[in-house]
Amino acid sequence: MSNSNLINPHADRLHQLRDVMKLHGIDAIIIPSNDPHMSEYLPEYYQGRAWLSGFTGSVGTLVVTQNFAGVWTDSRYWVQAPKQLKGTGIDLMKMEQGKPSFAKFLAENLPNNATVAIDGSVLSVAEYDDLNEKFATKDIKLLTDRDFLAKIWQDRPSLPCAKIYEHQPKFVDMTAKDKLAQVREQMTAKGASHHLISSLDDIAWLTNLRGADVSFNPVFLAHLLIGHKSVTLFVHQDKLNDAAKAALDGAGIDVLDYDDVQAKIAKLDDSLLFDPAKVAVSTIEKLPSLVKRIQAVNPSTILKAVKSDADIAHIKDAMRADGAALCEFFVKLEHKLAAGERVSELDIDAMLLEARSRQPYFVSPSFDTIAGFCSNGAVVHYKATKDSFGYLDGDGLLLIDSGAQYENGTTDITRMAAVGCISDEEKKDITYVLKAHIALAKAHFPANIPSMQLDVLARNQLWQHGLDYGHGTGHGVGYFMNVHEGPQVISRTAAPTPERIMVKGMITSNEPGLYRTGQWGVRLENLVLCVPACQTEYGEFLKFENLTLCPFDTRLILSNLLTQEEKDWLNDYHQKVRDELSGLVDGDAKAWLIERTKAI
Amino acid sequence: MSNSNLINPHADRLHQLRDVMKLHGIDAIIIPSNDPHMSEYLPEYYQGRAWLSGFTGSVGTLVVTQNFAGVWTDSRYWVQAPKQLKGTGIDLMKMEQGKPSFAKFLAENLPNNATVAIDGSVLSVAEYDDLNEKFATKDIKLLTDRDFLAKIWQDRPSLPCAKIYEHQPKFVDMTAKDKLAQVREQMTAKGASHHLISSLDDIAWLTNLRGADVSFNPVFLAHLLIGHKSVTLFVHQDKLNDAAKAALDGAGIDVLDYDDVQAKIAKLDDSLLFDPAKVAVSTIEKLPSLVKRIQAVNPSTILKAVKSDADIAHIKDAMRADGAALCEFFVKLEHKLAAGERVSELDIDAMLLEARSRQPYFVSPSFDTIAGFCSNGAVVHYKATKDSFGYLDGDGLLLIDSGAQYENGTTDITRMAAVGCISDEEKKDITYVLKAHIALAKAHFPANIPSMQLDVLARNQLWQHGLDYGHGTGHGVGYFMNVHEGPQVISRTAAPTPERIMVKGMITSNEPGLYRTGQWGVRLENLVLCVPACQTEYGEFLKFENLTLCPFDTRLILSNLLTQEEKDWLNDYHQKVRDELSGLVDGDAKAWLIERTKAI
Repeated sequence: MSNSNLINPHADRLHQLRDVMKLHGIDAIIIPSNDPHMSEYLPEYYQGRAWLSGFTGSVGTLVVTQNFAGVWTDSRYWVQAPKQLKGTGIDLMKMEQGKPSFAKFLAENLPNNATVAIDGSVLSVAEYDDLNEKFATKDIKLLTDRDFLAKIWQDRPSLPCAKIYEHQPKFVDMTAKDKLAQVREQMTAKGASHHLISSLDDIAWLTNLRGADVSFNPVFLAHLLIGHKSVTLFVHQDKLNDAAKAALDGAGIDVLDYDDVQAKIAKLDDSLLFDPAKVAVSTIEKLPSLVKRIQAVNPSTILKAVKSDADIAHIKDAMRADGAALCEFFVKLEHKLAAGERVSELDIDAMLLEARSRQPYFVSPSFDTIAGFCSNGAVVHYKATKDSFGYLDGDGLLLIDSGAQYENGTTDITRMAAVGCISDEEKKDITYVLKAHIALAKAHFPANIPSMQLDVLARNQLWQHGLDYGHGTGHGVGYFMNVHEGPQVISRTAAPTPERIMVKGMITSNEPGLYRTGQWGVRLENLVLCVPACQTEYGEFLKFENLTLCPFDTRLILSNLLTQEEKDWLNDYHQKVRDELSGLVDGDAKAWLIERTKAI
Repeated sequence: MSNSNLINPHADRLHQLRDVMKLHGIDAIIIPSNDPHMSEYLPEYYQGRAWLSGFTGSVGTLVVTQNFAGVWTDSRYWVQAPKQLKGTGIDLMKMEQGKPSFAKFLAENLPNNATVAIDGSVLSVAEYDDLNEKFATKDIKLLTDRDFLAKIWQDRPSLPCAKIYEHQPKFVDMTAKDKLAQVREQMTAKGASHHLISSLDDIAWLTNLRGADVSFNPVFLAHLLIGHKSVTLFVHQDKLNDAAKAALDGAGIDVLDYDDVQAKIAKLDDSLLFDPAKVAVSTIEKLPSLVKRIQAVNPSTILKAVKSDADIAHIKDAMRADGAALCEFFVKLEHKLAAGERVSELDIDAMLLEARSRQPYFVSPSFDTIAGFCSNGAVVHYKATKDSFGYLDGDGLLLIDSGAQYENGTTDITRMAAVGCISDEEKKDITYVLKAHIALAKAHFPANIPSMQLDVLARNQLWQHGLDYGHGTGHGVGYFMNVHEGPQVISRTAAPTPERIMVKGMITSNEPGLYRTGQWGVRLENLVLCVPACQTEYGEFLKFENLTLCPFDTRLILSNLLTQEEKDWLNDYHQKVRDELSGLVDGDAKAWLIERTKAI
């Protein structure tokens, strides 16, 4: 008996796409995870790869030919992707050392003179150059002027239209005018008459405006064109409230419609500074060829990574609020479990939201909560959904990675919680990860060190036991902004670009982990602020100060595996957590805080 | 009263050079530290920079214009260089982050259309390309076809003519034929019909021949051109003894004169593989433009870095011999000092040579002994000379960095010795450096890790106290070959090229240091072999095995600063040293060994 529910909808969409490809003489189509702003979180309108393939991970590139379809994604998704791709006819292609990238794969497998299509509005200039270089030896043609997905995506969502609002002036330490002046200084240094910014966090930071066009990041779809005398924001104007309009006017920023950017770019002369990794091919396709192209990381990316003392004071308030919410969450969770109540992974998300939303200046979660029980914890970017989630039944570890946007700060924290009895093997893994966490937290290092060099200081603690984790140890974090922000990144495999250096005032995560596929996952994450350590005849040294305030559950640690120095670090941290939070919680939450911050 | 001795000879030579430059319309001349083989140790014929400037460091580039002269060199020589350059009119130009390289300096300071001369026979293709790129914006012309130094260097030494001999077959694990076959495999993979090698260690390794054309490295001046059917060695033929001739013949290697290489290159067709960093511009200047240039690291550089089990067994014999010699040296030194005998830094060198030369298969030192007492120890590459050396008078630390070439291995070791009373400050520095040494020695790490990533594991131990050192932590070491050999290097500032990875079978130094300018210097160095650690679900892990066998003086260590794990490492190492050496020494040396390898 045939049953239409058994036909995989993604296999059907793939079939339709291949028909379109045949019709247009396209040998291969590439569908990346991008929008015109190279955002990490995409408006639904741009989630074509997920719509087509069923794979919902944050990173993934779908490649389709007539006889092959594959999604390239990194190790975070190697457990999740095969489940979601089952029945689609789409293969998981692992992104790892020694395996070909999708570009190399196509260059190797396509015939000479093949035609490859990719929508230029979701392809960065840097990726475009890279593809063309890889395709050159086989004279493969790259078509970027059409969105073939549009031909088959009937019920495609529309673009978002959330209101744009001012970042509250009391939380803003520098006016948009002053920020623009700093950017213009660097435009002058680089000899640029104009500067185009498409990256949404840069635009929100520069304008001191916020929006809600994508999940979790308080940004809005826009482009910004900065000249030495004028600035134009390209944005859907009905999103702007009166205060935002007035703020833009006050900062001397003109407003044009979102779609006008190409026409304005077409009229430029002189020179244009832009970040090739952050601007889409189609945004500047009409840039006159005589205009000098100056390609560099956006000056604002570097400027906004360094938080001012005033910013940091606000962020510390947000960290205290977040910590208080977490105390309330954890005590409630422990009570529910002790009472034998059945709790699901989705409940964890709801309980966290509930606790945080009572805190001042709360806006939204800063990313999808990862609450993974037992083997789900081993799926690095696990997401429980209504269709697929676990209950905290039986004994096991619960990994909780969550965070929030507050108007005075962005948080991101991972802690482990126990349900029932925990084995010594599990505790050993947690202890090793804690040792890695502490090693980075205690490190001193030269000012301006390439940030990727710090990664092995944490990872080494796991290597000693033949263990490792497939992700970086730390990412930059914004101020009421994206939870993943550059330029600094603590990952040994990150390319050593000149701007990826560790500077006083940067906020970065410290989150080593360990994942036992099919068993459990461990990750321990705090956000840390880069601060001065000392100045000696050997130069200036920096260190990290913990910003995140929440106990590590010492019942899950094998303290005999810790050195005295590590124990001292843990006790000092817990004392600080207690001191900072005890005035903000009471009743059960306060009792929990006191108990969980006891010295070991 | 005028005294001709007071006229600085280097200032005079500089004056003559400027006259030649004027005559030929040269705006700037660059005199690098190179020979046509891009060797680390140069035949005297090529030591033009030292002859002209007086600065004798191993790294340094002299740049001369009519109104400026400067030597660019790295931090190892920032104490030595100003002393040697005094009175020459030549400035020390520090090579460090943020300071312009000599190429950038020239590009910034020369007028448009200036002419810069550099002898193309001592300029690598890679450096040539780099210079041209930097000079392009100002249309600066680079002249490489003349050696202007020749016009003023009257008593220039002639080229060396040491005999070439076979590496004893009993110490050779692979025939030249087999080595050539391995190289040809990689030529095929890269699509190369021919492969030119100018680097002397590669040529000596491939041919299983050795020579003595430069100090310390058992190599001979030659080029090697490998085709798929024939191989030609370009060498001064009267250097070859009969056995060497027969060996070459047996391996199917033709011999042409050293100077014939350019003519042979001029007749090539098809494609040529060469390492642009290891071939001089003038060597391939006549390569027909139709020949495809395939630029890559020499395959032999990577092949020879990985030692076979048989090689390693021989090397361990050499390490035992070297260790025995060091026991004899140290006990003698201690006796002399105890007896109140006056000992100079030069005596140290002589005593080491004497002790080592009694060992089987000894050939020569593997580099200039660094024996630096007190503040001389803070000069990283200090060299005592007949004209300038110190006596071990009074209390202080003596840094001894030395090594030897044996036909069955190359050694390189640094130890600290005490003369009189040593302060706790000195002991603390030694202990910190020992902690850094142990941190790297104990590390486990993923197979094929970029080797530079290991550097911070050692350095971090010093950073914690606001301390650092201005050199890498480790360099590759050859097998009866150069004491500095790539591709691997443990230095966080080294460029992350794909071949710089840590592989089982590689030998590398582990030598963190700490230098108190004007006071004392500390360095502790062992050679370590990369060996398997374990294979887990997280991949293959490697670790280091100590090859060097010689006690660290535990009287100079503040053991309360060591963790139990560090003490265990030290005691295990000393037990191993005692076990390995006690059968090779007797009398006072044996008693010294037993005493100095006691557990702490």
